Order: sequence, then C-alpha cells, then structure tokens
Amino acid sequence: MPNTTAPDITAIEAAARRLEGHARRTPLLTSPFLDEIAGRRVFIKAECLQHTGSFKFRGAWSAISGLENEIRAKGVIACSSGNHAQGVALAARQHGVPAVIVMPSDAPRMKVANTRALGAEVVLYDRLTADRDALTETLAAERGLTLIKPFDDRRVIAGQGTTGLEIAEQAAEDGITDADVLVCCGGGGLTAGIALALESRSTHLRARPVEPAGFDDVTRSLATGTRQRNASNAGSVCDAILTPTPGLMTLPVMARLCGPGIIVTDEEAMRAVALAWSRLKIVLEPGGAVALAAALFHGERIKTSDVICVASGGNVDPDVFTRALATLTD
Amino acid sequence: MPNTTAPDITAIEAAARRLEGHARRTPLLTSPFLDEIAGRRVFIKAECLQHTGSFKFRGAWSAISGLENEIRAKGVIACSSGNHAQGVALAARQHGVPAVIVMPSDAPRMKVANTRALGAEVVLYDRLTADRDALTETLAAERGLTLIKPFDDRRVIAGQGTTGLEIAEQAAEDGITDADVLVCCGGGGLTAGIALALESRSTHLRARPVEPAGFDDVTRSLATGTRQRNASNAGSVCDAILTPTPGLMTLPVMARLCGPGIIVTDEEAMRAVALAWSRLKIVLEPGGAVALAAALFHGERIKTSDVICVASGGNVDPDVFTRALATLTD
Repeated sequence: MPNTTAPDITAIEAAARRLEGHARRTPLLTSPFLDEIAGRRVFIKAECLQHTGSFKFRGAWSAISGLENEIRAKGVIACSSGNHAQGVALAARQHGVPAVIVMPSDAPRMKVANTRALGAEVVLYDRLTADRDALTETLAAERGLTLIKPFDDRRVIAGQGTTGLEIAEQAAEDGITDADVLVCCGGGGLTAGIALALESRSTHLRARPVEPAGFDDVTRSLATGTRQRNASNAGSVCDAILTPTPGLMTLPVMARLCGPGIIVTDEEAMRAVALAWSRLKIVLEPGGAVALAAALFHGERIKTSDVICVASGGNVDPDVFTRALATLTD
Repeated sequence: MPNTTAPDITAIEAAARRLEGHARRTPLLTSPFLDEIAGRRVFIKAECLQHTGSFKFRGAWSAISGLENEIRAKGVIACSSGNHAQGVALAARQHGVPAVIVMPSDAPRMKVANTRALGAEVVLYDRLTADRDALTETLAAERGLTLIKPFDDRRVIAGQGTTGLEIAEQAAEDGITDADVLVCCGGGGLTAGIALALESRSTHLRARPVEPAGFDDVTRSLATGTRQRNASNAGSVCDAILTPTPGLMTLPVMARLCGPGIIVTDEEAMRAVALAWSRLKIVLEPGGAVALAAALFHGERIKTSDVICVASGGNVDPDVFTRALATLTD
C-alpha cells in the first residue's frame, strides 16, 4: 500500500528552507491590457522564469535535497515528457549525482535536448507500445536509483507548494484581499501544493485547477467526487499537463481545498501564450498558459474581484510558439 | 544655454523613493546554457519585465512625479519611436494628466497601438520630411505641455539610474564581485544613470555601452573624446536605440565613468532575442538584446569573470520576433 498522506504546511516550510538560495522567487506580473480583457485585475505568477523554465525545479530540488546522502549518491530516475525531466536533471547535477530520465520519444525536441544538456542520461520509449513503468523499475533496480515521481510524492508536492507560500506573500504585498488562484493542472502536484500553502497562509485565496479540453480528469473528479480518467493520453498542444488521472496523494487534497476546475480549449491556450508574449514579455508553453487563458476567456466562471494565474512553464518549440503568435493577427 | 549638469546619487535615490510601489524591481536572471555560450557567468537584468515592457517607465515616472502639481496638471509631451512613448503615456495616465506623444510614422505598429491604448494622444510625423522638434515645440506652446525628454533630462536619467541601484543590490546578493555591466545604449540615459548609481554603490561594477553596427555614436565618442554622429537615422532592426548622437548631459557622464563600448550586428541581436526566448523565457526586442548579444558573441572584449547585461525592452512586432526564432534552426 503506497503512502498517500500529503505533506502538511510544516513540510512545505521545510522545503522552502531547503530551496532557499537555489530556487528563484518568481515575480507576480500585471498588465493593464490583460486586466481590460479579463474585466478584473489579473496577477500572473511567472514560474516560467524559474530555473529550467518551470515550477518543476522546486519539487525536484525539494525531493533530491531531502534524500539521505548515501541514497542520493547512487542517483535518481524520473519519467517525464519534459519539465519534470529538466527540473530533476538540473537539481541532480547541482547535487553532483547522476540522473536517468525516461522520456516519450514524441516529447518536444527542446525538452529532450535540454534534459541531455543538463547532464542527464535520457532513455526514450514509444508512448503507444512500451511499458514505461516496467522500464523505469528495471533501470532503478539495476542501478540503485531513487525514483522521483512527478506529483505523488510528499517532498515533490511540498516543493511545488513553496510557490503558494510566495503567492501568499506577494498577494499581501500587492493588496489582494480576495482572489481565485488558477493553476495549470496535470497530476495535481502544483495545485495541491499551492492549496495546502494557501490553507495555512491566505484563507481568502482559493486554488482552482485549470485543464485543457479532453484532459479534464481533475475537474471531473472534483465534480463527481470519484477519480476520473481521460479517454486519451495525447492530442492536445498542452503536452506538459496531459496526465491520465489525478494523483492518489493530490486528489484528496484538491477535493478538500480547491474550487471547481475550469476547462479551456487549445486555441484559448495558444491565444494566452501570445498575450503573455505581447503584454507581459514572458514566454509560456501552451500547458503553462491554461490558467491565464481561463482568467482571460472564462471570466464568467470566476467570482472574485482579483484573480491570480500561475504561469507554470515556458518550454516550447519555436514552431508551436510561432503558431501562437499568429493568433495575434488572426 | 541648456542645463547639462547630470544628476548625482542623491537625485537617483530621490527618484527611487518616488518610484517605490510604482516601478517593478525586475529580476536578475541566469541560465547555465548562456553561461556556456559566453564562457563566463552571465546575469540578465530583465527590464523587459518593467511596466510598459521597458526601462523607460522609470525615467518617465521619475520626471512626471517630480513636476510641480500645477505644471504637471497641464499635461506632458514626448517624442519617441516607442518605448519612451509608452513609459510617458502610462506614467501620465497614472498621474491623471494628459500626454501627447509625437511618433515617427514608421514606428513599430505595436508601439503606436500601445501608446494610444495607454490613453495618450499620438501625433505621427514623417521621419524623412518633417521637423519633429518644431512640431513638438508648437504643440507644447499651444497647450502648455511640459516636454519629457528621452535622455537629456536630470530626472529621467535619475529614474533610469534606479536600475543601477537594483543591479548593485542584486549583484551583492548573488555574490558578483567583479563584472562589466553591459547596457543597450541609444542616447545614453540608461547607461549614464546606471554608471552614476554604480559609481556610488558598486565600484567593482563598471557600465559599458553596447550599440548596433552603424549606430555606434557613443562608442566612437568615448574612443575619440569628441561627440560623434551616426551617418543614418534608420536601417537597423534595433529601432529602440537608433539615436543620432549622444546626449549633452549623458556623454560627459559616460566619458568619465564607462568602459569602452561594444558593437554588435543586427544578426547577433536577433540571435540574442532567440536565446533569451529559449533560455530565459523573456521577450526582448532586438534593441533590448544588444547587451546580451555582446556578452554571448563578443566575450573577447570582456575581461571580468562575470558579466551583467541589461535587457532593456521587449516591445517587438510578431513578424520580427518570428524571424528571430528562425535563427535557432538556421
């Protein structure tokens, strides 16, 4: 029986101490142009400016820094289409330990290339035919590697939750008294971590997951009260957040603390990528822009006077980005 | 005789107090990939994340907030191809006073549109045939508007200099003990302001101007000891920094405090735009990327172990940006 007990605020605070001086405190950005589109004040937590271009570095550093020295020295292994891969690769390199990353062969080229350039050994598998988990277990057992899971891991969730600690601080600094906090949601590690941090630090801020259409397992799970699964594993431009089903550890946290999910289309995500480029001067990948898309294009689902969007990642191939920019002149 | 006495550190500190809570403290970003290209540690002061997408907001706010109430109430006027325009427009709107912006008719579309959207009245002129200064003087006299100059103004330089105060603080936080501070340079307001701030706060940091090839008036002026002029006013993709000649107020400051200038090609600026996109997840315009281009592609001109680059602006049209991204696969 796996341990499905999520971290508490003490674990998130401990992760924050381990991350100090290693993770970046990312800025909370604004634009009068985005406020006008959304019809309310919009604040964007720019986690794309985090090391490796996504929030995943926080969880990876938290998990690796929390291992016992002897175990860590043998190295770590992770499965990821890209952002978790890069986070684990850099955190492992900075700890001076080997990392093996198991990636689908159709992952964005930039993410594969970056993961290798950050010193990790990349093992590619075919998403349609191979058994990823069996492959990973075999490699881990053979080499004594510790698996760093992308979301169902207490230290990973605690690391992602440090984003929530910063949001609580920055909201107070900016005079935000009542806001939904929209979070780009795959397996729910970031959403659950932020929800746990806000529960303790900012009860007037409420986390809500945002997902791409067709990959709304968390939204449906929250609505029905039972764990739902997506019909497909691929077919959206939001590759970073196409998780088949919510985490065993993250879903109970989200069910207890989060507001209802919001679903956006790929087209809305692409328009949000373009608007973040023109109005905020930040680079988002489509999966990292769904929260902003929800704020901009689904304002009727939001009741608070202000809204905070986590812009969770910016690792995108140039051709996808160029297509996003083309939406500005459509 | 115009007053050509530059501001001192006291004026920069006063500007910093007026800017507090209004300008953003922009982050100092890094990437292991950029360090590898440059062969040294590279730190990027991301002023593209400033309000209106460039450092110009600092000077505009500093100048407008420093006016006497009765004079300010009548409104302000500025001449600008774009970034100064947007900075003045937003700062005027936030002060509740009218702004007239005189812009060349070939300015980037996005800059003209944004300036209007920020509430300013835009007056277009033909760069080749019209007398911009006469037009501006007439408008100012008719309506009682105060001219906010782009660089030869004590309060504007003091405002831009607050970037240097932040660089000094952030360099200390990041353990940078010896670095050239490369600054994208047009008329020299940002370069001179930063140089003045560093003179007082970080004597181990030295400002150096960076200019596009063919528009190297400051570099030649520093090298020859006399004020030089560019042969042309247009013809580079770095539209933000194509000033014909150094400022009367800024050049003496740069001559006293700055290291030698560095010149980069348009192609190098475009590659720096693309690398800032892929490695830092920030959006730069070519003129805002020349300092980064110098660090990446002219490392032989730099002797310090670390280098700090000011990424001064990110207001760029989608077609130019798409061309920049294409350099990644060339």
